Amino acid sequence: MAGTTLGVGLIGYAFMGAAHSQAWRSAGHFFDLPLTARMTAICGRDRAATEAAAVKLGWESAETDWRALIARDDIQLVDICSTGDTHAEIAVAALAAGKHVLCEKPLANTVAEAERMVAAARAARVHGVRSMVGFNYRRVPAIALARRLVAEGRLGRIRHVRAQYLQDWIIDPQFPLVWRLQAERAGSGALGDIGAHIVDATQFIVGDTLAGVTGLTETFVKERPLVGSPSRTGPVTVDDAALFIGRFTGGALGSFEATRFAGGRKNSIRIEVNGSLGSLAFDFEAMNELHLFDGTAGPETGGFTRILVTEPEHPYLRAWWPAGHLLGYEHSFTHEIADLLTHLANGTDPEPSFEDGLQVQQVLAAVAESAAAGSHWRELPAATRNAA
Amino acid sequence: MAGTTLGVGLIGYAFMGAAHSQAWRSAGHFFDLPLTARMTAICGRDRAATEAAAVKLGWESAETDWRALIARDDIQLVDICSTGDTHAEIAVAALAAGKHVLCEKPLANTVAEAERMVAAARAARVHGVRSMVGFNYRRVPAIALARRLVAEGRLGRIRHVRAQYLQDWIIDPQFPLVWRLQAERAGSGALGDIGAHIVDATQFIVGDTLAGVTGLTETFVKERPLVGSPSRTGPVTVDDAALFIGRFTGGALGSFEATRFAGGRKNSIRIEVNGSLGSLAFDFEAMNELHLFDGTAGPETGGFTRILVTEPEHPYLRAWWPAGHLLGYEHSFTHEIADLLTHLANGTDPEPSFEDGLQVQQVLAAVAESAAAGSHWRELPAATRNAA
Amino acid sequence: MAGTTLGVGLIGYAFMGAAHSQAWRSAGHFFDLPLTARMTAICGRDRAATEAAAVKLGWESAETDWRALIARDDIQLVDICSTGDTHAEIAVAALAAGKHVLCEKPLANTVAEAERMVAAARAARVHGVRSMVGFNYRRVPAIALARRLVAEGRLGRIRHVRAQYLQDWIIDPQFPLVWRLQAERAGSGALGDIGAHIVDATQFIVGDTLAGVTGLTETFVKERPLVGSPSRTGPVTVDDAALFIGRFTGGALGSFEATRFAGGRKNSIRIEVNGSLGSLAFDFEAMNELHLFDGTAGPETGGFTRILVTEPEHPYLRAWWPAGHLLGYEHSFTHEIADLLTHLANGTDPEPSFEDGLQVQQVLAAVAESAAAGSHWRELPAATRNAA
Amino acid sequence: MAGTTLGVGLIGYAFMGAAHSQAWRSAGHFFDLPLTARMTAICGRDRAATEAAAVKLGWESAETDWRALIARDDIQLVDICSTGDTHAEIAVAALAAGKHVLCEKPLANTVAEAERMVAAARAARVHGVRSMVGFNYRRVPAIALARRLVAEGRLGRIRHVRAQYLQDWIIDPQFPLVWRLQAERAGSGALGDIGAHIVDATQFIVGDTLAGVTGLTETFVKERPLVGSPSRTGPVTVDDAALFIGRFTGGALGSFEATRFAGGRKNSIRIEVNGSLGSLAFDFEAMNELHLFDGTAGPETGGFTRILVTEPEHPYLRAWWPAGHLLGYEHSFTHEIADLLTHLANGTDPEPSFEDGLQVQQVLAAVAESAAAGSHWRELPAATRNAA
Repeated sequence: MAGTTLGVGLIGYAFMGAAHSQAWRSAGHFFDLPLTARMTAICGRDRAATEAAAVKLGWESAETDWRALIARDDIQLVDICSTGDTHAEIAVAALAAGKHVLCEKPLANTVAEAERMVAAARAARVHGVRSMVGFNYRRVPAIALARRLVAEGRLGRIRHVRAQYLQDWIIDPQFPLVWRLQAERAGSGALGDIGAHIVDATQFIVGDTLAGVTGLTETFVKERPLVGSPSRTGPVTVDDAALFIGRFTGGALGSFEATRFAGGRKNSIRIEVNGSLGSLAFDFEAMNELHLFDGTAGPETGGFTRILVTEPEHPYLRAWWPAGHLLGYEHSFTHEIADLLTHLANGTDPEPSFEDGLQVQQVLAAVAESAAAGSHWRELPAATRNAA
Repeated sequence: MAGTTLGVGLIGYAFMGAAHSQAWRSAGHFFDLPLTARMTAICGRDRAATEAAAVKLGWESAETDWRALIARDDIQLVDICSTGDTHAEIAVAALAAGKHVLCEKPLANTVAEAERMVAAARAARVHGVRSMVGFNYRRVPAIALARRLVAEGRLGRIRHVRAQYLQDWIIDPQFPLVWRLQAERAGSGALGDIGAHIVDATQFIVGDTLAGVTGLTETFVKERPLVGSPSRTGPVTVDDAALFIGRFTGGALGSFEATRFAGGRKNSIRIEVNGSLGSLAFDFEAMNELHLFDGTAGPETGGFTRILVTEPEHPYLRAWWPAGHLLGYEHSFTHEIADLLTHLANGTDPEPSFEDGLQVQQVLAAVAESAAAGSHWRELPAATRNAA
Repeated sequence: MAGTTLGVGLIGYAFMGAAHSQAWRSAGHFFDLPLTARMTAICGRDRAATEAAAVKLGWESAETDWRALIARDDIQLVDICSTGDTHAEIAVAALAAGKHVLCEKPLANTVAEAERMVAAARAARVHGVRSMVGFNYRRVPAIALARRLVAEGRLGRIRHVRAQYLQDWIIDPQFPLVWRLQAERAGSGALGDIGAHIVDATQFIVGDTLAGVTGLTETFVKERPLVGSPSRTGPVTVDDAALFIGRFTGGALGSFEATRFAGGRKNSIRIEVNGSLGSLAFDFEAMNELHLFDGTAGPETGGFTRILVTEPEHPYLRAWWPAGHLLGYEHSFTHEIADLLTHLANGTDPEPSFEDGLQVQQVLAAVAESAAAGSHWRELPAATRNAA
Repeated sequence: MAGTTLGVGLIGYAFMGAAHSQAWRSAGHFFDLPLTARMTAICGRDRAATEAAAVKLGWESAETDWRALIARDDIQLVDICSTGDTHAEIAVAALAAGKHVLCEKPLANTVAEAERMVAAARAARVHGVRSMVGFNYRRVPAIALARRLVAEGRLGRIRHVRAQYLQDWIIDPQFPLVWRLQAERAGSGALGDIGAHIVDATQFIVGDTLAGVTGLTETFVKERPLVGSPSRTGPVTVDDAALFIGRFTGGALGSFEATRFAGGRKNSIRIEVNGSLGSLAFDFEAMNELHLFDGTAGPETGGFTRILVTEPEHPYLRAWWPAGHLLGYEHSFTHEIADLLTHLANGTDPEPSFEDGLQVQQVLAAVAESAAAGSHWRELPAATRNAA
């Protein structure tokens, strides 16, 4: 890293692009960072829209070709927020060009793509070029606290992990056939889009990886109106919902569910972990809370303690407001950027790595394969697990 | 039924025996019943203990041989609350003797036993002899209301069922090897003891049955101190936890988990159902509440409504207190007895039937077989499902 | 007390009569009591209705004149569940006749009546005749646990008490002018009916009494249809809602509210106590829970712990079901009867005493006087407080 | 307003200064605003600290004299985030200089100061110079939605308002004597600091003002260590807690409590409103939720609906993330700035006005006077109420 300024180029200006932009704009105003990010350029395919996004989101310039973005000398980091089918090509090229890469999750649409990205990341790493995959929920303070408590042994030996990611935005059968419902663009449906988050978040919290799974997927609404031509329909080629159960390497049992058909659940990520000494429970709909059961307390006053994760002693919180003043969704990205910039300045590898992203991809692939083959058990290769 | 009094004989005086006794004592004081139960005799193996239980629990006499109990002319109904391995023999004999039978769940320890019991129940039914299996949670008012709302179509087409029955009473590895941890007595562990309840309750609520499952079981603590000889240990021969996922006949996906290793969860039965028009959520730790999401309400004021199920309009509630005055666990049994007595007086078959009990047993068996065979998919025979 | 059986006579068979009956029927089946209650007679004004109630509620005989009931030799305890305007006369006569008295709350409709009752109770007490006022919420296990924790010093010095008793059953202006809305029968409205409960419960929990108050009352709907003549209306002569703030003798501040106009709150008793070392929170709509904040825990894992008050270590719970199996409203009465019978057998005075009832009455009177006189401060006499 | 850029000068760089800075930086990136704020200068007394704050918080320059700030031609709006005792002088001067003013709450430390500020605001208003007081909680989306629902008549006639603002940051008697605990700097304690917020928020929600109050205040810890000289102590000259009850002009009853001694409550603002047709409940510890009881729904499925206030149909939400992605504390300020800039561009007066701030101050003064005079009733002048 030459100097203390980092030129950043962002690819994509939709939901994730906006979230990342707020994080790039804000991180330095709350965290004392050794490196200052410069929001050099944003990239999209449509010039007018991209230029408007640059103004709106605070980027200095606009590009319409990601190759041009990567080629710019004033950019040292590429932040990939485009659709999943583009991740591998862009990331590999950026890393080859010596640019650090932050890539949104899922790392790729296939294991093969993810493997190519890992290879590129490893090759780049020897030259000090860093890479990170954007599982932002790791940086929700309550989830970071959960990991800390597990790592400290507060839960003892982990026995159970259960996680659900519930949404409802496509319940209406008239909701159109957007790109997220097309396998060639999105890779998978609920499985990859939101299932990926709970696979990563739970593995992160318990510090262990899945050893095998058996799964079930379903597409409830098989045809939907075409975007722009609502009188015609086309086939939905991804899953609406995915369920799976599995075993962690350390012996814990896991139960997972990702769906876009849970009416009334908008973005509900529910995670519960039970260990021999205690338990943890989290729901993103109350994202500033972590519920801790300390099994070593006696029965008279034992129970789940609702920790309002807004104390200076909690992860990331010292940078923000006094206790009791809540954070929101976007702060997870601000924390991600702050951590990333710190690693870049320190010359260390940020987490989650591309290897972590690949490992999640392998879990998702195993679930999909199990579901496609009659819900039979799929062992995950030990090598992968060790790598992660 | 001759006259309006029913002589009842209860077998077993432990937890379930005490709960049933309170129900037999109380039902007529709250519900206007066409038939009066007489608490004629209680049966146990130890004479002194059984006679003490008779006094304590309000039974007129004590028996130490269940065959003698069945033989008594002043008993027209046998209530079986003994361990699962005794159910089949007692129930078959009682039905053959022309006694109505209420049998605690699970109906039996094996499918074969349950099939014999169904055969006996069918044979007896033609003579007006009734039988019922004691899935008491169906009579928790919030669960009965849930079923009503689903039956009325308020949820539309059911897409998801998720259910967890979480306990923690054997987390301590020093907890002794009680009969519930021995396969020959209990049949299975968490699967049959508490998993049975959520299989029945969810099928009851959605009015559908499971068509296939794949499962996973685990015994976390494989050796435990012997009861009475804590310096020696013996093998735990049942599951500590069971997870499974499956499909319902009508196309819904189901996720189930039963465990005795969820620290801090004492008797937490959590059920959530998502349909095309709405959702329901229940937790037995707040058993007087049902949470309903009405998807037809607009987004401005939509959300889960916390129904305090204490209104006269709610199932069973007209018999009790003014709105806002909660009921407890034992009331589910009182409702069970009230319904049973009403069916006996009316000459109709109470639910859940032994066939229902058998069908649950078949689900449990399929889960156990799947778990034993590498978590592969097990289809449930259509005939069974039709029967249920 | 001659022998180990106690003949009980109950006056009133409406809501409270039914609740007490269930308690008299049940207490001995769950608690090991040194004294057996015999449900000797129930008393009401209408013969047919009273006889029907005797059958329905489990009483051996029926009386239509409370004086006759008191005169019976086979009755040693009179349980007064009639309207508040009758309490003083019946209780004084019963005590004079040497009968123990359990009197529903509020002890009386006026301070003067309550003072007469206290005088009678004191006179009787020297002869071993016991008296108790029925503030049943003290025997909700979570409230009894709250008191225990405060008494043990777990909260340190008490700073704040806030309590609300919220109902909504007369929001509809067409709801008729029942006796509870008439001052001559009911004494007061929300203030005496439900405000009395939170005054007693909070004083019980913190072990302190109010030293002064200032209050506000309101009758939102001033005319209502007459019962039986809905085309005519009459004046509501009691308060619909009462609010007051005050100071406890020990320096804590108190905030109280009782209303029948809180839409959606059916029987919501919310109590929160803050001390120098911790806090407690309770809501009767989740009556099996107590929330405890332990201020001595560090900030990292501090917070309110949701205690599910169903453990054997909790007050009254050893008599009931395994942990996690909830109790309901009526159990508070069962506990009341169990405690009462134990005191009678032991020859000790049960609590709350008539003096406690008088002290609550004095608080209510001070609130009413303050409200009537422009919401000015009313000091409570120290003597009263000391007596309590 | 010349052109579409507004030069802003901020006074103060502590908690409120940081919160406002984030809002000034962010508003234009999420809302389509007709006016662009330029963060021209920040002002503090210490040059080095102020210059550091300018860099950290994103201001172009630093000033150490607020008079100099006001005098700058490139500043058209002054944002006052300094201590309460400075508000009046700065605001009056700024308005006289033709600068728009955003002033943090409470508007002033005394009614007299607030009246001077209102006079200045009125004089300035005729010249198109705008003023606003920073009751940011009005712009928490759930609170804005609450107001909308009340204004639409969804709750019918308002009967009850109850509000609590609970904190615990000075429970420890060793917490030092900071400026907020000194009357000459802070005016009052919990009453003005946090009580002001719930007075404003509830009046805002119900669209009505308090007509009279009676109050109670207490200073639990009367001496505290001096800042910087912990071995010496000084007197706490403000209230630790303030309770009051009152009547609204429209007939509703109100109950209020503000305290810094509620252990475990960090920034808990709880508001509940009951009307003839429905109720609302809010808790800032779950700030993205609003609970609505619709009394017109039948009892079978009636109850409080938990609205997750993250839908595009909700106030301010269209600017942010998809449904289910929560906002935090700081967003209330971003909304405040967005609304303010819109009003400035449109030439309309933003709310809450200085008159609103004065009216809140009058309520606080009445509470303080009541508390000082034995908790007697204080009527609020009708003129004030009309003005508000």
